Amino acid sequence: MSARFVKASNALRPNDASETRVKLYSYYRSSAAYRVRIALNLKGLKYDYIAKHLLKDGGEHRRADYLDINPQGFVPALENEGVLITQSLAIIEYLDEVFPTPGLLPVVPADRAIVRAMSLLIACDIHPLNNLRVLNYLKSPMEQGSDATAAWYRHWIAAGFAALDTLIARYSDAGRHTFKDSVTMADVLLVPQVANSRRYQMDLSLYPALQKVATHLEILPAFVAARPEAQPDAE
Amino acid sequence: MSARFVKASNALRPNDASETRVKLYSYYRSSAAYRVRIALNLKGLKYDYIAKHLLKDGGEHRRADYLDINPQGFVPALENEGVLITQSLAIIEYLDEVFPTPGLLPVVPADRAIVRAMSLLIACDIHPLNNLRVLNYLKSPMEQGSDATAAWYRHWIAAGFAALDTLIARYSDAGRHTFKDSVTMADVLLVPQVANSRRYQMDLSLYPALQKVATHLEILPAFVAARPEAQPDAE
Repeated sequence: MSARFVKASNALRPNDASETRVKLYSYYRSSAAYRVRIALNLKGLKYDYIAKHLLKDGGEHRRADYLDINPQGFVPALENEGVLITQSLAIIEYLDEVFPTPGLLPVVPADRAIVRAMSLLIACDIHPLNNLRVLNYLKSPMEQGSDATAAWYRHWIAAGFAALDTLIARYSDAGRHTFKDSVTMADVLLVPQVANSRRYQMDLSLYPALQKVATHLEILPAFVAARPEAQPDAE
Repeated sequence: MSARFVKASNALRPNDASETRVKLYSYYRSSAAYRVRIALNLKGLKYDYIAKHLLKDGGEHRRADYLDINPQGFVPALENEGVLITQSLAIIEYLDEVFPTPGLLPVVPADRAIVRAMSLLIACDIHPLNNLRVLNYLKSPMEQGSDATAAWYRHWIAAGFAALDTLIARYSDAGRHTFKDSVTMADVLLVPQVANSRRYQMDLSLYPALQKVATHLEILPAFVAARPEAQPDAE
């Protein structure tokens, strides 16, 4: 291991959230950063917001100093005392382990697995297909026009939301959360993905259980404060 | 919650691995099922292999009885006493919580986060882009030929492997594992993805740290026994 990262095991310990100040590398429009902002807000953690503009000057995330933080060049990344963590789900699980209250995963393994599965349905099977880099590849070299690209975008959301709606109907207690009756990681993932579907004029009434849960969640303060338009780098 | 699934919290408890018999819904060529087979083998768990052919008769995974198990219609799915878990990473985390020895995640939160991030790099940012359903969409309606589709396939692996190689060089101790010096979930994810890259004739020497680790891992017995060609439904 290189010297800079060898301290990973020794940094950020469970402690009082009010004493901790983490750094979040973010971009206001990034759905993955949006997830982490929600999780940080739910935990009541203050954090330094470091904006990385994905479009300006060919992308600030592609510069060498940021690639040292995240070799993928993606936002978000979380930093604390030499610990650098990438991938939004890894960051959220980390935050949940280090700052366990309120918990974003249930206690029982089978329940945790279902919340993780719903989260991964969004994080693996919807979002990466509709990422900016993928849409750019469809435009060039694949020469797809904006109609074809929009159809692609909606196609993967529709496939994912149909299955997720079934799971939410199965596991939600009162139609206020994706799993049972408290906010979990799956709720944190759902709201930014629903925001994306709205930007593409999708009809959420096709997914009634999902729509009901999202409508409840998206006005909660931790979710509102995490919205793209509420970020310091919003344009 | 519906009656069938309400028992989720009450099933599979931590117990002696030798007494447990789980069901794995699998397809020999599925990379995601391959991951779970490796994890089950590493844990020394015997399991019932239930083959779901993704191509025969329009896909056995699309039938109503399987959609009841996994509304996404994907393999793998894991079943035990009424607990149904989908999404390979959720299954692996579940197995690691219920059968903790040998552990597939480190103990320290920051270390766990890095292993999860490397796993998610593959599970989110490489594999879903190259899935069969996506390749099919590129063929129709997007009318991409086999050369364009193969270029797409290699493009996302190359982007992911370049970043992953940097992370492995940073965090591997002796070049035998992706993280430090024991087998983790990231190793479980790496080997099936490397197998896919070989099927598309990619030059792994461009990713020397990754190649070295994969070469060590892929001949370990738990990995060998999980290979597609070793499965009962292999053709």
